[in-house]
Amino acid sequence: MFFRLRPYSLFVLIAFAAAINADEGAKRLATEGDPQRGINPCSECHQANGGGSEEIGAPRLAAMGADYLAQQLRNFKDGHRKHPIMAPWAELLTDAEMTALGAYYAAMPPASNAKPPADIDKDAGKWIALYGDWSGRRLPACVQCHGPLGIGVGQHFPALAGQPYNYLVGQLAAWTTGARKGDPLGMMGTINAKLSVAETKAVAAFYASLPAAKAVEVAEQIDRGDVVPDAAKMQAPEPREAPAPIAHKGPLPHHGEVEPGRDPGEAGHFAPPARGEKPEKELGEMVALGEAIFMHTYSHEVSGKYIGNDQVCEGCHLDAGRLADSAPMWASWVAYPAYRKKTKAVNTMIERVQGCFTYSMNAQASEVGHAPAAESRTIHALMSYMYWLATGAPTGDKKMAGRGYPKLAETEQGFDPERGAAVYAEKCAICHGANGEGGYAGEELVFPPLWGEKSYNWGAGMHKISTAANFIKANMPLGNFLTLTDQEA
Amino acid sequence: MFFRLRPYSLFVLIAFAAAINADEGAKRLATEGDPQRGINPCSECHQANGGGSEEIGAPRLAAMGADYLAQQLRNFKDGHRKHPIMAPWAELLTDAEMTALGAYYAAMPPASNAKPPADIDKDAGKWIALYGDWSGRRLPACVQCHGPLGIGVGQHFPALAGQPYNYLVGQLAAWTTGARKGDPLGMMGTINAKLSVAETKAVAAFYASLPAAKAVEVAEQIDRGDVVPDAAKMQAPEPREAPAPIAHKGPLPHHGEVEPGRDPGEAGHFAPPARGEKPEKELGEMVALGEAIFMHTYSHEVSGKYIGNDQVCEGCHLDAGRLADSAPMWASWVAYPAYRKKTKAVNTMIERVQGCFTYSMNAQASEVGHAPAAESRTIHALMSYMYWLATGAPTGDKKMAGRGYPKLAETEQGFDPERGAAVYAEKCAICHGANGEGGYAGEELVFPPLWGEKSYNWGAGMHKISTAANFIKANMPLGNFLTLTDQEA
Repeated sequence: MFFRLRPYSLFVLIAFAAAINADEGAKRLATEGDPQRGINPCSECHQANGGGSEEIGAPRLAAMGADYLAQQLRNFKDGHRKHPIMAPWAELLTDAEMTALGAYYAAMPPASNAKPPADIDKDAGKWIALYGDWSGRRLPACVQCHGPLGIGVGQHFPALAGQPYNYLVGQLAAWTTGARKGDPLGMMGTINAKLSVAETKAVAAFYASLPAAKAVEVAEQIDRGDVVPDAAKMQAPEPREAPAPIAHKGPLPHHGEVEPGRDPGEAGHFAPPARGEKPEKELGEMVALGEAIFMHTYSHEVSGKYIGNDQVCEGCHLDAGRLADSAPMWASWVAYPAYRKKTKAVNTMIERVQGCFTYSMNAQASEVGHAPAAESRTIHALMSYMYWLATGAPTGDKKMAGRGYPKLAETEQGFDPERGAAVYAEKCAICHGANGEGGYAGEELVFPPLWGEKSYNWGAGMHKISTAANFIKANMPLGNFLTLTDQEA
Repeated sequence: MFFRLRPYSLFVLIAFAAAINADEGAKRLATEGDPQRGINPCSECHQANGGGSEEIGAPRLAAMGADYLAQQLRNFKDGHRKHPIMAPWAELLTDAEMTALGAYYAAMPPASNAKPPADIDKDAGKWIALYGDWSGRRLPACVQCHGPLGIGVGQHFPALAGQPYNYLVGQLAAWTTGARKGDPLGMMGTINAKLSVAETKAVAAFYASLPAAKAVEVAEQIDRGDVVPDAAKMQAPEPREAPAPIAHKGPLPHHGEVEPGRDPGEAGHFAPPARGEKPEKELGEMVALGEAIFMHTYSHEVSGKYIGNDQVCEGCHLDAGRLADSAPMWASWVAYPAYRKKTKAVNTMIERVQGCFTYSMNAQASEVGHAPAAESRTIHALMSYMYWLATGAPTGDKKMAGRGYPKLAETEQGFDPERGAAVYAEKCAICHGANGEGGYAGEELVFPPLWGEKSYNWGAGMHKISTAANFIKANMPLGNFLTLTDQEA
């Protein structure tokens, strides 16, 4: 031998051999089961292609996340998921077998055996799937965690696309009955509780009708028209009574510059034009472009060249800039020009937005190297979109309820990186990554990176601890609001 | 002789000799009178320095316009002005003597013997003198015809500054009683009828308190703080019931781009913040700068370098951009971004205003050679000012009553340059000049040039016949509205 066997090489060899063994074992369990232990083959229900079964409501496993699949087996074993057939078998599996089974199915080509029923209108589920119902009940869209077209994100957010309808409906019901638990931060339980039964069926039919695919493949196929769908062709959910606005502890701030304000609890919130409503003709086209840029700023063909990281406007301004208490655009529009301490000058709205590109979007590191000019298509589109969102808002009203982020009183313990890291690991990392790297579906951003080179720089509003805390308190985790204490935020 | 006496040289010599004779004759009349004809010396009442007399209410003549003075003598002679002392003497004067007397006093150094009474609050007259009351009763400011600080403009608009209080009050009363007539287009009669007696006294006291000076000298002394006075320190006139909006014959246009609109007669007009009201601190300073630029665009130190002619924003947008039916800024602000046929693109408000600089202000011929950039102080100031004027206006409302200029139906006779020239000579030239050259007080613009190199170019809104006609019909002549027929406009 010309080279010495180093300790780690030995480790690699052993691991490799173990993987082969695991693979073989998993394949056997999947296709033949383990008659000695009384375990039936997975394919009996999940089918040979791993695409699941519409008839018995068995989920698609093929090309799902490995960790996600293994975790589900563990959930059956420890009782977080209750299932008369799966639970007894899961109890018999070792942890290594569960890991191996996850890896086995994750490596299979994507497949779907879903056959959504013809009498459920899948289009009726599209709105909640793609937009949610933020203003009505602070309900995030499914795509905000499960990725565009429901292709799944990371190990915590399974693909919904191509899952059998009966499985999806069954799972949503299971969150209601308590037969399924163990979702990270209890998010699905909270979200499911906000849906009507009819809505769960419509949403399930919508996702069951989409093709199963690996995230990276779907990301390549994504048509912008699907990513920013035409709400005018969709059916909005029944209007709900809006929840009471968040109680504010002090004046409403907008990046720290606003005068002491009106109590939002008294005034209710301004309503921008309904999603999908648009002005006519050329301005309407510009508004639609503005919305697309708002949602996909760093990857959009028009605006991408100005972005030096992986951020989108919507990352800080939820519900496409429409959501009260999430620095909504309709409240900002009527408040500029304004003097800003940051620039020590009166800035126009265009300059304010250019500031976002410079700091939050790190334009210096972009292809172009600077924020878009006032005359650029990107600015035209964003201004048109913001202007449209503010339709009817009174010019100069700097105290609109829901403006900016609700301000937190300073906490007794103050800021502390160590305590922050603990909270982050527990409550933030599943979406934003253990190292703040964000979450992607293929190449499409789903959860914004929070630090590192893909994130905003020192000058961004979110870089300011108090601003970030205000945002977090009001809006995080998505759909599971106010589960952080002020101190945690 | 080394040179031949050419015919015109002879003419010049004769004219020169005649002028000397006229001068001598005028001087004699002024200082000694003509006892043979029973004419007392002018100086008996108007004083040796020509500064008039407060005691007997005799006007200042020194350094007034020559043609204006001669015209007044003719008015006494033909009965347009009635005066028990002046009329009989004027009847005895020849036309040449009247011309000579006008020239004599015009050439004297400015002087004033005014002593306004202490018990009349001159500051109470400042508002009407400097701002008028456009929105209340479509009353132009005195300065709009009589020039900044009332120094007089051309031959038709006499200086008011330094005129004795008793003379000014008497003259205003004379318009009321009919003792004075013959004002061009009946403008002063119309304007005077809109004033209360208390207001005439206050305005007279204000002008009597100003120093007499030649226009060119005053123009040099003008302090911007006087030209754009601080309304917050002045007393607004009593609110009047606003006159009924002008009846519109069709939809409200804004440079031809607006949708068919609301009937302004039903809605009344939006009220911008009161003149002189300002936001606090830095934004307030920017708003004040914006107003100053709006009023003095071509001569202002901040904006002048972008202007290639002698135009100001206020020339097309009366009452500092506040007046309904005169393309007011508050209605424009909430209507942008918008698609414009002219540019075939969606334009922001900044671009719309840059268009004014390019076309109406002919920026190409300016010192800088182009319109101000979006980041310039000029744009910051104008945006802040327009935003402030729109305080409370609903974003996106493109049908605000009073927006743009009221549209005229097409007339039966159509457009005709010849008939237009006749109307111009009769009704426009006294202000805008026989050759459209505009009217100035010293170097300060009072009446915008309408054609020629000091005027707007082919691309300006006003260059469009229909837009100009709409503006003219609604707003010209100043203070004497609707005396033009649709066809004349």
